[in-house]
Amino acid sequence: MSKKIINKPENVVSEAVEGFMLANKNSLVKVEDVNGIIRKDIDDKVAIITGGGSGHEPLFMGFVGEGLADGVAVGNVFAAPTPNTIQEVAKAADQGKGVLFVYGNYAGDVLNFDMAAELLDFEDINVNTVLVADDVASAPEDRKEDRRGIAGDVFVIKIAGAASEKGWSLEEVTRVTQKAADQAFSIGVATSPGIIPGEKEPAFVLGDDEIELGMGIHGEPGIKRTKMMPSDQLTEELMETLLKECKINAGEEVAVYVNGLGSTTLLELLIVNRKVGQLLEEKGIKVYDMDVNSYCTTQEMGGFSISLLKLDEELKDLYNSPAHSPYYSKNIKE
Amino acid sequence: MSKKIINKPENVVSEAVEGFMLANKNSLVKVEDVNGIIRKDIDDKVAIITGGGSGHEPLFMGFVGEGLADGVAVGNVFAAPTPNTIQEVAKAADQGKGVLFVYGNYAGDVLNFDMAAELLDFEDINVNTVLVADDVASAPEDRKEDRRGIAGDVFVIKIAGAASEKGWSLEEVTRVTQKAADQAFSIGVATSPGIIPGEKEPAFVLGDDEIELGMGIHGEPGIKRTKMMPSDQLTEELMETLLKECKINAGEEVAVYVNGLGSTTLLELLIVNRKVGQLLEEKGIKVYDMDVNSYCTTQEMGGFSISLLKLDEELKDLYNSPAHSPYYSKNIKE
Repeated sequence: MSKKIINKPENVVSEAVEGFMLANKNSLVKVEDVNGIIRKDIDDKVAIITGGGSGHEPLFMGFVGEGLADGVAVGNVFAAPTPNTIQEVAKAADQGKGVLFVYGNYAGDVLNFDMAAELLDFEDINVNTVLVADDVASAPEDRKEDRRGIAGDVFVIKIAGAASEKGWSLEEVTRVTQKAADQAFSIGVATSPGIIPGEKEPAFVLGDDEIELGMGIHGEPGIKRTKMMPSDQLTEELMETLLKECKINAGEEVAVYVNGLGSTTLLELLIVNRKVGQLLEEKGIKVYDMDVNSYCTTQEMGGFSISLLKLDEELKDLYNSPAHSPYYSKNIKE
Repeated sequence: MSKKIINKPENVVSEAVEGFMLANKNSLVKVEDVNGIIRKDIDDKVAIITGGGSGHEPLFMGFVGEGLADGVAVGNVFAAPTPNTIQEVAKAADQGKGVLFVYGNYAGDVLNFDMAAELLDFEDINVNTVLVADDVASAPEDRKEDRRGIAGDVFVIKIAGAASEKGWSLEEVTRVTQKAADQAFSIGVATSPGIIPGEKEPAFVLGDDEIELGMGIHGEPGIKRTKMMPSDQLTEELMETLLKECKINAGEEVAVYVNGLGSTTLLELLIVNRKVGQLLEEKGIKVYDMDVNSYCTTQEMGGFSISLLKLDEELKDLYNSPAHSPYYSKNIKE
């Protein structure tokens, strides 16, 4: 089944980090002895640290750059980075102004990032944390703290990076990043599974004509298994659930991000984006920006997610700040 | 087999163009009545026009932007854009300084772009053409004119856009773009097929443990069908053929681009890039820049290609000029 172009499965992440560093040695630096990367020149500012399991590339390592993350702790495939990795990355990136951890809400990541924060506390480095928990399909509203982080990571890292570039304090950067996390909402659909490097079998099985709404990016169970349907109908169904959850009203403004999970083509994603735009217009919700890409993947999984970031003037200004990393670039000109 | 997230197959391209325009209306403009797109603000300069069949996204439409193409003519999936589409896009982009067509060397595209050039000649618009024919596996060196264009398109569009931004004449832009095309070399490998939207069967069949070196991006026959092998060994075999063809010697300088064909993950591509970098270093070939992405895809085809652009001082300066489009961004700081 799987024809992964790899060497030994146990070396996948370290070799990928090596290949990534070869391509980005002018702007990034490898942190010694761990799978961690920081920016070469970090201004005198709050350091934004992200990370998580590999297998979702270009997240997270592709988002280290200007106006984004200052450092990334890279875990093995679908596994949290170790506390030691996170600690070393944070120490290397810290400029004495404190560190903000921004990452997706998964038990293993929370455990290890929290442990790293404790270790850093002993070294008198201030650490705050903002968890991204944008996936509205992963838990109901009354258990919001159980929601997982998916493509909304992109929005929250973007806002955190922009706030820190402005020279804001750790408290202020944390406040606005938490606001972004609270106002980022996503929902996804899976059409086919991806395979972890080294495994023979896919993470889950879907019938030939079957899709699963709300499935997580590691194959976590979704909210509804159903028959394949036309793109517009599928987009409409997802948007209905999403808008119900995020309580965005006519006249309000959003940034939109349509994310491919791996093997779903840009041609398909653009067709989804067309319908998303039409639906938002019908509802009188203003679209400030739309991005269509595959930033948060699950190997060659098929499917996509739709993310909305509800904007106020403060978030809009930060969203609009320049950002530039190997796999993300934003420079809105109005 | 196929679970494309589309509506009617015959509307795939026009709906994708619509979704693309919704996401990029601040910087791009749709050309009326055809599947064509131009930049909103084109300086008083030579207009760079690219295009080709759809199905390879983000090429070509994702490469309209600053320092890249000024307009794109979008064909149906795997089909050349019509002469009328090309003509309308060129007319909309022309600033009176002439037009350069830059596109991949395929019979259908050549026929239609040439016809458009003739039609534009009647309207007193000067048109030059540079064909990209970087795929060294598609024909031997003594039939270089038969070689197909693949991921090397990215290099050649980049150089053409940079030269035109500098305000050079049509003749000068053509000269340096042709030089880039002459010095761009690629080779690919296919591990699994993609499926055209609306079709039930893939474009070709490969055994469970089989790959094909040199296969084209529409499934054109390659140079060798072989067993799956470890990434390093595969990369070494491809690089050996590539370097033999492009006659790049120790001490010379190149830009490298590792391109995924669709469902091959960035994790895998980065591992390939690691080996490419190691091999070039062993041979004493200097690496000016490396880019790892999936700019030139074939739906969800598996596999990748390696492209080299041999640089001299003139090309290096142009390669290093700022470029920014919805799916490509380059801003090297040394």
